[in-house]
Order: sequence, then C-alpha cells, then structure tokens
Amino acid sequence: MSAAVINYYDGMMRWEPDSRGRLERAALELYGERGFENTTVAQIAARAGLTERTFFRHYSDKREVLFWGAASLQELLVKAVADAPAAATPIEAVAAALETAGAMLQDRREHARQRQAVISANAELRERELIKLATLAAAIAGALRDRGVKGPAASLTAEAGIAVFKVAFERWVNGTDGHHLQQLIRESLEELKEVTAG
Amino acid sequence: MSAAVINYYDGMMRWEPDSRGRLERAALELYGERGFENTTVAQIAARAGLTERTFFRHYSDKREVLFWGAASLQELLVKAVADAPAAATPIEAVAAALETAGAMLQDRREHARQRQAVISANAELRERELIKLATLAAAIAGALRDRGVKGPAASLTAEAGIAVFKVAFERWVNGTDGHHLQQLIRESLEELKEVTAG
Repeated sequence: MSAAVINYYDGMMRWEPDSRGRLERAALELYGERGFENTTVAQIAARAGLTERTFFRHYSDKREVLFWGAASLQELLVKAVADAPAAATPIEAVAAALETAGAMLQDRREHARQRQAVISANAELRERELIKLATLAAAIAGALRDRGVKGPAASLTAEAGIAVFKVAFERWVNGTDGHHLQQLIRESLEELKEVTAG
Repeated sequence: MSAAVINYYDGMMRWEPDSRGRLERAALELYGERGFENTTVAQIAARAGLTERTFFRHYSDKREVLFWGAASLQELLVKAVADAPAAATPIEAVAAALETAGAMLQDRREHARQRQAVISANAELRERELIKLATLAAAIAGALRDRGVKGPAASLTAEAGIAVFKVAFERWVNGTDGHHLQQLIRESLEELKEVTAG
C-alpha cells in the first residue's frame, strides 16, 4: 500500500497535495524523536508545513495517525477470506487472506518499522495494538463462519492466523535480511503446523 | 481454586473472616445488577458489611477485584511449562500447563461465569482482559525460551496455547453440559491440530 496521495481542496481554495501523507510522515518522525506522549498536534502540523485545522480534517487525534489503517486491513482480510475458493480449508482461506495483506503492506516496510518502534515505546499504544489484532481475529472468525465453518474451529483458525501474522510481521519489521512479508507469513504458518503437530 | 479464606486481623482488634472473598462476591453481584461503571467501592463495602478502608486493604480499586487472579495464573502457567518433562515438545509443555490451570479454575465456574458476563458488558474491561491474555502468552513464550525453544516457535506455540485456552474457557463458562474445563482444553487443542493441518 503506497501512501495514498490525497489532493485536498479546502475552503480557502488552496491545494494541499498529499497533506494526509505529509502529516503522517511528520507525526512518525516526531514520535520517534521525542516520544508519542511528548508530541503535540501543533508540532505535527508545523513539521508538515500545514495547519492544525488541516490535521483535524484528516485525523481525529494524534493516535489515529498510527491506527487509521486498521479498518482497511480488516476489510481486506474479511474480503479475502470470503473470496477464497469454496474448496479451500479454513486455514487455507486465512493463509490466502494474510498473504494478500502481506503483499499490500510490503512496500510500506520503512513506515511499518518506524510505527512499530513508536508503539513498542508506549504502553497505551501497545494495548491499542493488541486490541486491533484481537478485533482482526474476531472479524476473520466471523468471515469463516459466513463460509460455514462451525463452532470453535472458526475462532481457533482465526486466532492461529493472527498469531502467524504477528510473528511474521515482527520478523519482517525487525529483520535485516530483506525477506518478503508474504514469504515470512508462509514460513510462520509452516512453523505453526510443526509446533501444533507436537 | 477455591476462594482463599483470609482471616484478616485489623487494627481495631476485630476479626473479619474472609473479608477478601466477601468483597469479591459483593462486587460481582453489584457489577451484574447495576453494571461495573455504576458501582462504587462504597456500595461494594456496604453490601459486604465491611468498610471502604477494608476494601482498599485488599484491592487497589474496583477493577482489581476482577483481575487480581491474573498474576497467580501467570505464575502457575510459567511454573508448569518449566516443570514439564524434558522430553515434552513445546506444545505438550503448554498443554500440560493449560490443563493444570484448568484443574485450578474448575471449582470456580460460577464465579468465572459471573465475571465473564461483567467483562463482556464493558469495553474497558474487555480490553483489559485482552491485555491479560497477551501478557500470559508473552510469559508462556518466555518460559518456552527458558526450555531452549528457539525463535518464533516459542511465540507461535504460546499464542496457539492461549487461543486454545480462550476457546475452551468460553465453552466452559457458557456451556450447560457440565464439561470439565480440562477436557475442553484437550478437545480444543485437538481441534487446533486439525484446523492447522488444513
């Protein structure tokens, strides 16, 4: 997913090309430099060369800069589970969805690395990230139930899938070996199969 | 785990038998009747026939009544992973730990059911419960690494174990069929093996 270029046409008849992306990059820089808790919206807007008013047209608060992508990630995962071939087993449907997400995230690695460092440094953000992952797991379980997967199998497959994604994502973000996220997702899934087989 | 009977000897030379357990039962009743957010410590103390001061000797706030058990659960899981036979595979060590926890929780089912209803009804408590489970997963992963389990296998096994526990716990709490929690943990683990095998 490349940072969306949004040409925002404001009430003052000025163009602000990619103001959303500029605000996001400015925020990540400042969170990294001085910490999330010590950064203000005024500082983010100033660093981006924009006004606070423009910030609040794009983000509801400084935390949303880090979490706005969760909704589209969830939508993508749910759609990919739904679109998996009818013959796919539950874990195959989830694996296909995770690989689709991996492909989408691949060219945002530097952004993901910066974001992860900010989140790791702040307890409130770590909690928010856990809640995001749990919400994704619940959405995937729902998509599996819509495919007719019964009872606890839907929850177990979804939770296992999120565990695979989490481990692969950490290896990808922290790794220096240039592995592709999709590849790491496949490897982590293989590893999960091995560990659960005992 | 039966509610610990704590004979608390206070400064006024009175005995308050099981004041901790009485406060916990009063709190769960009130949270169920009027909601967690609408219950005060004063009301909990009054219902238990104790003072607010006694409440704060046992619990730091009204949320801790619901989460004080997490520390001992974590200790028990970590110890059980460490104590598993050297020949046990990672998933066997985790399964043994979860079954030990299951045995400990078994005779607190009514308490667990009440607690779960309170948590389900409140977003902040649901978030706290997720954080508790993630913390347990991290602690189990650490215990596996101490056993020499390498790299992502430790995290994957721990996350898979917590997913199994979560699903089994929900079936146990909501079920009317009187299944034993240990049995449901074993069944959920079997089901995880099946779903990951695809």
